Amino acid sequence: MKRGIVLFGHGSRNPAWAEPFLALREEVSRQQPDALVELGFLELMEPSLPDAIATLAKAGANEVVVVPVFISAGSHVREDLPRLAEAAMQAHPGLSVRIAASLGESPEMLAAMAAYALRSAGAEP
Amino acid sequence: MKRGIVLFGHGSRNPAWAEPFLALREEVSRQQPDALVELGFLELMEPSLPDAIATLAKAGANEVVVVPVFISAGSHVREDLPRLAEAAMQAHPGLSVRIAASLGESPEMLAAMAAYALRSAGAEP
Repeated sequence: MKRGIVLFGHGSRNPAWAEPFLALREEVSRQQPDALVELGFLELMEPSLPDAIATLAKAGANEVVVVPVFISAGSHVREDLPRLAEAAMQAHPGLSVRIAASLGESPEMLAAMAAYALRSAGAEP
Repeated sequence: MKRGIVLFGHGSRNPAWAEPFLALREEVSRQQPDALVELGFLELMEPSLPDAIATLAKAGANEVVVVPVFISAGSHVREDLPRLAEAAMQAHPGLSVRIAASLGESPEMLAAMAAYALRSAGAEP
């Protein structure tokens, strides 16, 4: 099995908005150099999620995990994303697409965000 | 000096969207039980940022640090937030309002998000 990861973001009209996503993809590759990882945006930015999944499928992935890089799951994550994942599986027979939880559903991420907030406020935990 | 922290989120029509924010506030209090911390939303949810700052001022804060709980800083963080911070300082003489960086500008947060993405994908770093 060959697994690919999509870091799924909303997208923005402002190109600078993508910078943390580019940095995040680099950091994933730094932590795991052989990870097959792409950015995929819902709207306003390229590559789109379907394009990101197609890139991973072309690279030989037969499983794709989409990680919603969202603090909280609103309608984009709860409704648009499952629809896009379903369409991608139909477009790429033999490819399985799984959706991970949003950041804010992870106790470890909440702990990291809380520590960041306290550190930013100059109030070390 | 008494410092307050606002965890600033976008807001959503879906009440469940607030859950990670409520959990984040609890986690901040768990990590630092005497932290003066409030949630403040830009739109669609209560309390608003001005209300959150007013609550902290009433509790005796003379400095408020607003932490944008956003992956990336778009126009809400770059334009709306400074305007709201300025208005809050005018509304509360003697109160200083400082804006922290968004999550995705912090190398530690990027490292935590990357590790989360790899873990979620079942590809431990």
